[in-house]
Amino acid sequence: MPVIEVSRIEEVTRAALARHGAGEAAARLVAKAVAEAESYGNRICGLYYLESYCVQLGTGRVLGDVVPEVTRPRPGMVRVDARFGFAQVAFDAGLPEAIAAARENGVAALAVGHAHTCTALGFFTRQIAEAGLIGYGATNATPIVAPPGGKRRVIGTNPMAFSVPGRRGGVALHLDQSTSAVALGKITMAKAAGESIPEGWAVDAEGRPTTDPDAALKGALVSSGGAKGWGIGLMVELLAAGLTGSLASVDVAPLKAPEGPHHDLGQYYLLIDPGAEGGAFFDRLEQVAEVIASDPGARMPGQGKEAMAEVDVPDAVWAQTLELAG
Amino acid sequence: MPVIEVSRIEEVTRAALARHGAGEAAARLVAKAVAEAESYGNRICGLYYLESYCVQLGTGRVLGDVVPEVTRPRPGMVRVDARFGFAQVAFDAGLPEAIAAARENGVAALAVGHAHTCTALGFFTRQIAEAGLIGYGATNATPIVAPPGGKRRVIGTNPMAFSVPGRRGGVALHLDQSTSAVALGKITMAKAAGESIPEGWAVDAEGRPTTDPDAALKGALVSSGGAKGWGIGLMVELLAAGLTGSLASVDVAPLKAPEGPHHDLGQYYLLIDPGAEGGAFFDRLEQVAEVIASDPGARMPGQGKEAMAEVDVPDAVWAQTLELAG
Repeated sequence: MPVIEVSRIEEVTRAALARHGAGEAAARLVAKAVAEAESYGNRICGLYYLESYCVQLGTGRVLGDVVPEVTRPRPGMVRVDARFGFAQVAFDAGLPEAIAAARENGVAALAVGHAHTCTALGFFTRQIAEAGLIGYGATNATPIVAPPGGKRRVIGTNPMAFSVPGRRGGVALHLDQSTSAVALGKITMAKAAGESIPEGWAVDAEGRPTTDPDAALKGALVSSGGAKGWGIGLMVELLAAGLTGSLASVDVAPLKAPEGPHHDLGQYYLLIDPGAEGGAFFDRLEQVAEVIASDPGARMPGQGKEAMAEVDVPDAVWAQTLELAG
Repeated sequence: MPVIEVSRIEEVTRAALARHGAGEAAARLVAKAVAEAESYGNRICGLYYLESYCVQLGTGRVLGDVVPEVTRPRPGMVRVDARFGFAQVAFDAGLPEAIAAARENGVAALAVGHAHTCTALGFFTRQIAEAGLIGYGATNATPIVAPPGGKRRVIGTNPMAFSVPGRRGGVALHLDQSTSAVALGKITMAKAAGESIPEGWAVDAEGRPTTDPDAALKGALVSSGGAKGWGIGLMVELLAAGLTGSLASVDVAPLKAPEGPHHDLGQYYLLIDPGAEGGAFFDRLEQVAEVIASDPGARMPGQGKEAMAEVDVPDAVWAQTLELAG
């Protein structure tokens, strides 16, 4: 497995996207997101997605050179119509006004609609925290999670992310997690390895708990923590799809298929100004961090996960990346 | 077990609170909250709390006749200093301005600080939904949950609630849940019954998973869904304690102890105007509700839980209530 500099990953990814029709902003911002995912060891949201981006630029599932439409229907609310382009471009277009809105109002929403998959949601909330604001994010996905007691795939893995700035800058707490018990990849990996899966991950096509990965793939995932995660997944669904006017997860086509309709996904963010509270917020943040630090084995979410300057990339993935870049 | 009309529960609770020193607003609003909890079968947050309210009115742990201080430091942010009084009184004082702020700005925060325990958080977010807004709520509590891999009690059961209005009024979706795997009461009940507890509920004093309720009571609860629930519990902590300037959970004294410091808890709410999105929000809400309704055994959170007009109350609890009311 070759060790590749993250800056090189970004450069080659950018070239690959540009070669397949992405405009300047799309190539630059999506490459940044891919490189950042790799730098945090998040392979699923890194180079593994690049081929589908390039193929879908060709088939028109994602539009690589549209200009997002930013509006501000209310003082605390910034809306971005991604116009079926990349989520990173739409977010970037709306972020400055959303930051200004949060500083003026204490809290603001940034609702991105009709976007391509945003892949790693934490990429976006981290930017909010780096601007000194608390960032919450929610996005929907293809349908894969069944309700407790049910068997239909109603919502996606519907992740949420939450990033908190430190008193003197940086990101003091960061989480980016699906609301399902596990990612679908864990089931496909168990199947490939010929292993069974633990109870509590999935149900079969009849809604019965299963430990058979094959039956799970014909059935559905379940929510993290059962009914509690189901509630949070639905909350994410209503924020991400409902408040942006994008598709409900049940209507979203498989994300990586070469052909098909636009993803038409929503990403909903809340930006909260901790400064509106004086120093109390940071006092509590640091107090909680200290208590956690005093407990061996425990850590703040996101702590100890620094961005790496170079990462291992599987041979086949790197060869494909270079090929995509021409 | 006598069957008691909820209106009678409210009346007697109000009398009990007034008799123990609660002012008019506190007696009326806390009685409403107690009656509503009972009407939804939520006994833990109903009459079981009344004795501690009355006792603590006497000892000064809660101040029964303070006027909360409402300020609006930013257009989208309403703060209420509960001044160590009841959470219900503080929320009621800030709600009208927070609703107006959400309508004007698209989104607004209502941060209630230095309050007594709010008991059922859903009591508050339901009011937000009944006003036609999406309501999210978070509150902290006494320390009882340890981090994954740790053993210290860092945060409380730290509940969150989320209530969504229907297109034509009412509450279409409602959830109110702790971020811990279970409530502490499930451990104490298992202990009383001489039963073991399932793995995944608690750890012992050394941070090891345990099925022994005794060891769990000397240890800590764990978060729902492990690391994912831990992240959400911390998010609740930072919103509820940090953004309101109230105590971190580690510093909160046992809620029902007769003597001791003020609870000094925080409740943080977000109010989001779905109308700012035109009808799209309700289209998605109804679509998701229909898909769930088509799946036998599945339901929307909060669905099928109508308020009851009369409820069973254990003899001892009702006798105590009547005694408290004199």
